[in-house]
This record gives sequence, C-alpha cells and structure tokens, in this order.
Amino acid sequence: MSNYIDVKTRDLKAFVKNVFVKLNVSEEGAGVIADVLIEADMRGVESHGVARLKRYVDGIKKGIMVADAKPTILKETPVSIVADGNGGMGQVIAHEITKKCIEKAKENHMCFASIRNSNHYGIAGYYVLMALKENMIGISMTNSAPLVVPTFGKNALLGTNPISIGVPAGKNFPFLLDMATSTVPRGKLEVYARKESKIPEVWATDETGKPTDDPQRVLDNLLERRGGGLLPLGGGEELTGGHKGYGLSMVVEIFSGILSGGAFASMVYGKKGKPAEVSHFIGVINPEAFDGLDKIKNNMDKLQDMMKSSEKAEGKDRIYIAGEKEYELTQKHLEMVPVQDKVYNTMKEIAEELSVEFNL
Amino acid sequence: MSNYIDVKTRDLKAFVKNVFVKLNVSEEGAGVIADVLIEADMRGVESHGVARLKRYVDGIKKGIMVADAKPTILKETPVSIVADGNGGMGQVIAHEITKKCIEKAKENHMCFASIRNSNHYGIAGYYVLMALKENMIGISMTNSAPLVVPTFGKNALLGTNPISIGVPAGKNFPFLLDMATSTVPRGKLEVYARKESKIPEVWATDETGKPTDDPQRVLDNLLERRGGGLLPLGGGEELTGGHKGYGLSMVVEIFSGILSGGAFASMVYGKKGKPAEVSHFIGVINPEAFDGLDKIKNNMDKLQDMMKSSEKAEGKDRIYIAGEKEYELTQKHLEMVPVQDKVYNTMKEIAEELSVEFNL
Repeated sequence: MSNYIDVKTRDLKAFVKNVFVKLNVSEEGAGVIADVLIEADMRGVESHGVARLKRYVDGIKKGIMVADAKPTILKETPVSIVADGNGGMGQVIAHEITKKCIEKAKENHMCFASIRNSNHYGIAGYYVLMALKENMIGISMTNSAPLVVPTFGKNALLGTNPISIGVPAGKNFPFLLDMATSTVPRGKLEVYARKESKIPEVWATDETGKPTDDPQRVLDNLLERRGGGLLPLGGGEELTGGHKGYGLSMVVEIFSGILSGGAFASMVYGKKGKPAEVSHFIGVINPEAFDGLDKIKNNMDKLQDMMKSSEKAEGKDRIYIAGEKEYELTQKHLEMVPVQDKVYNTMKEIAEELSVEFNL
Repeated sequence: MSNYIDVKTRDLKAFVKNVFVKLNVSEEGAGVIADVLIEADMRGVESHGVARLKRYVDGIKKGIMVADAKPTILKETPVSIVADGNGGMGQVIAHEITKKCIEKAKENHMCFASIRNSNHYGIAGYYVLMALKENMIGISMTNSAPLVVPTFGKNALLGTNPISIGVPAGKNFPFLLDMATSTVPRGKLEVYARKESKIPEVWATDETGKPTDDPQRVLDNLLERRGGGLLPLGGGEELTGGHKGYGLSMVVEIFSGILSGGAFASMVYGKKGKPAEVSHFIGVINPEAFDGLDKIKNNMDKLQDMMKSSEKAEGKDRIYIAGEKEYELTQKHLEMVPVQDKVYNTMKEIAEELSVEFNL
C-alpha cells in the first residue's frame, strides 16, 4: 500500500506552476495547469492530480504537447465557438475557451464550444466549476486515449470520455456530475491490480472480448494492444445496459471530435511523437434564459433535500448528491493536501532535473 | 406468451388519430399523437406504442391530460424557450415546441427549450427525429413518474428519465441514442414477471432497498409504494457505477423540471386526478454553427464504420450503432406493424366505447 505525505496546498500549486514555467509554458498558463491539477487532488481525484505531472513533463519533451500554444478561433457565432488547440496544453486551451464561452453566455444566453487538436485537459469538472463560479450552468466533455471497447467489440476504440454537468444551488455545494462514460477509469484497475484483488465483471474485458475479473491481464493487454479493454458504463451486455454507456461515449466523441472537425475514437493519440489531438466540448448556459438564477437555486436545494432526506436502503446511511463528496474533500484540503509518496518522489526528481526549487 | 397481429401501419395511424379527435384533441394534434405512438411501434419500442392508447384515453377522461391544451410561451430569447404545457397531451406540446426550436436553430444556430406542466410525451427520440429530418442535431429529455431509487436510497423518487441525442450521418441511418437513465424501464420487469424469470441484480431493489432478482416483488412494491424500485443505469452500488446513472437521472430532472420552473422528481404525478406535470427539455443545434453539415455527416460515417468494422468479441457477430436496430425495424414496418393481441383487443374496446370505426 502507498503512504501519503501531506503538503501545503499553496506550495504544491506554486511548485507545479514553476515546473511548467520552466518548460516554456506562459506564466498565466502554468498557473492554470497547476490550479487544474491541484483542484483534482483537493477533490480526491488523485488519478488526475499531480500524479500526472510526469506525463505532462514528458509530453512536452516528446512533442505531444506544445508548451506555448494558444487556441485559434476557427468559427464563431454569438452562441458558439469552434477552436483549434494547436497541440497546446489541454488545460490552457480549455480554460481560455471556457472563459470566452462564459462571456458569450452572459451576453447571449448560452455558448457551446467544440475544440480540436488539444491535449489531456485534466478533470472535466474544472471547466464546469469555472461556469459555476459565475453562477452559470456548465457542461464539459472530452475524448481521450482509446481504452474502452464498444458493446460486442473486441478492441478498445473509445476514450473513457467523461461528461461533466454542473448547476448552481443555493446551499453549500452545487450539483456537479463528473463521470467517465466507462464503468471505471483505468486507474481503478491499477489500484485493484496492486492489491491483487479481483474486479467486478462489468469493468473490463480480456483479449477475447469477454468480461474478466483479472485487472492485471486487462492492463497488460491494453499496453500490448492485444484486445480487450475497459467496458462502457453498464458493462459488456445489453442486459445490464452496456449499450447505453457505449452510446454516451459516442456522444462525447461526436460533440468533441466531430463538431470541431478534429480527431475522434481511435484517431486520438494516433500519431507517435505528435500532439495527441484530443478534442473537447464546453457548454455554458445562463440561468436567466430559463427560470432565472434565484428560482433555479431554490429548486436545486429542494431537489437535493428531497434526495438526501429520503429513507436509506438497508445497510446504507447516507444519500449523496453528485459533487458532494468532492466538495467536502475540497474544504478539507484548503490548507494541506495528501500526495502519494511515490508521486512526491517523482516531483522531487522533476525538480532536480529541471532545476526548480523543491521545498514541499 | 402473447401473440401478435399484423396491421396496416397507415390504418393503425388513422384509427389512433380518430380516437383522439373523438376525445376533443385537435385534428393536427391527434395526428401528431398517432404519429408518435406508431413511430414507437415501428421502431420496436412496444411499451411506448399503441399499447399506451388506453392510458392516454383514461388520462383524458380523468383530467390528467387536457385534450385541447396548447403550450404557452413564458419566456423567449433568440436561442431559448420556456413553455407551459397547460396540462396538455405531451406529444402535442413537445411537438409544437420542437418545431419552434428548429425554426430558431435555423435562424440563430441553436435553441434549447424547457417545458413544464405537460404529460407523457411518448418516445423521447421522436423529437430528435424531427430535428434529424431537418438535418439538425437533436436532444430530448423528459422526467416521468417516480419509479427509480437514488443510489443508497430506499424509495423511488426519480423517473426513468430518458435522454435522447441524435446526429445526422451520411449513410442510411443517423446516430440516435434514446435511453432511459435507469438500467431498464418498468416494462422490462413486466416481461420477466410474465415469464416467471429472474432479473439481473442491477435492475431493481426490493422493499428494503436491496438488489433483488424477483421482478413481481418489485412491481407489487411499486404499486403499493412499499419501497424499492428500479435502479439507475449501473445498478445499486458505486462499484458498478450506479451513482452515474443516478447523476444522469438528476440532470434530466434539472433540465426538464427545474429550468422550466416545473415539477421534478416525486412531484411528478403527485396530484391525483390533476395533470401529471411532466417536464421536458428539447435542444436543436444547427451543424453549421460547428464544422458544417457535410463534414459532420462524413465524419459520422467514418466513426460508425470504425465501430462496425472492428473485430467482434468472442461469441458476438455484430457491433451496433445507437438507433441502428430501431432504424432497421422501422424500414421493416413501413407497410405492416405487429400489435400484441391484448393491445389489439383493447383498441377494439376503445373503438366501441367511443363509437370510432375499427377496421384493422
């Protein structure tokens, strides 16, 4: 089992920012990437936090990510944007387009943006949080490296393709769904493989395309492209609803990769040593176009209370709202945030290699 | 097992239309309802076809549905509509608002509508098909009678809340996802109960809130409101992704019920003998706001081919695209469509009762 080291949230953010500045990312861009990564750690989404730092550093070195690229607007209407990420850092690209979308939604009621030729943008929910901070409804989706098999298929052709949707509420925390359209992300299999535990049969398939309970086999197969992969939400059969997760995953490919004229499905991460051509989709909706912010917030509280105050299933003691657990973790991690010792050591190595001060 | 009687598709539509005209629905509205119901039967979605006719007839008689109501626009921008369905027939209300949305999307790139105080609107995909026929991207969602439990909850508070999303493609059939956000709809439990078969444990919970394999028990419990109900897509545990289906179901409640200022969750069908206060959400997006219709169609074909031509899992011989099976069934049912003998007999009874000619 891994051990955790508590570090100061602020210092971690400063360190990560310095790393990216050193790698030729703009001061502002580096700050955005650091904020996205540490937000993930604060929310308890370790797989998308500073644990990814090395992959980004390597990505820039290998030319998969262009450190100083900014997005180009290819097409624009009062309520939509099509943008090219020019192979830039996903966080920087998505952050800038989300900002533009928020402006448009304030002026013109809503804005939807489809972005091509970007890279891994971290947690999908970050861009929704940006909208929520402005009292807007937010939507964010992205395609990603092909790890997920279509229903009845043998090979991984689709990304884990997260969908995030957030709506402001009146009380402490907004509704914030942020879900991979696969049953679980790859990181979950790694955790089970380390524990030498079996996995539920709705998580993944083996090299013949049949559901398996052996996580290491799936991970090895994915690495060697021998067939099999993660299963869409709902598992491998129509009986358990797997075709629905597959359909949602396709929606993400379409809204991100096809509406932008970018890469989709197995085209993503398709060219070695070239930008990964990840595509994103961002939406911002002004509540005033609908029932209005105050009434919507009030009804969101009612809906959340209706769920949370209802009777629990036997053996369960709490009903959650999407984003509630992550909100609570964020509050807990305002000052200090835990980092796996392995990740801590990797950061130290990166610091030495790049001559960036390390005082965490 | 039930037997099926093949009837002429055109005659079935004419009969259903005559029934609604007799019940004081406008000529045009009756035509729309008939078209929505028979479209469902043609697509093989029997549960939402003419099998529902009696429920609609009873709904009008009992005052749950107002036969001659039309929607009122409460708020409007170039890209959005908030409407009140005035307790009308769901199909008539949603059809009229979708038409308006298509016009707006042609003029202003997109349109999203949230509709309150309506009724059951049939298959969600119908309104998406309307958009697809105009070469637009379509979205449709609706809340519905509370039958689904939130993750870790005991009582059914949420509807089966379908989400439908469609995107034009170049070849024979467009992408058309139309999925309940529960693992299965109630009708599926009825089928298994009739066969005295057990159900998979990701489908439903018993009166204690625990997953069960006994469909009749779930149906009885729902009727008597004893607790338990259908499970969200992903089942009853976070381990199998049930919180994701629950989150998607909440999104449907929010976009339909809360953005419109209407009823949501357990408020729907909350007042006996009054309109059911079902809420809908409709979206229409003009492809020209993004990469343009021709390129999008072309890439949709590529994406579909990428899936369909890829290797199959062992024991499987075909990979489907969302909407493909239903498209094929529709082509098969252009002239004749099968109707369950039980449903056929019910139609005959309705015809006698209302003095409508019956020559199917």
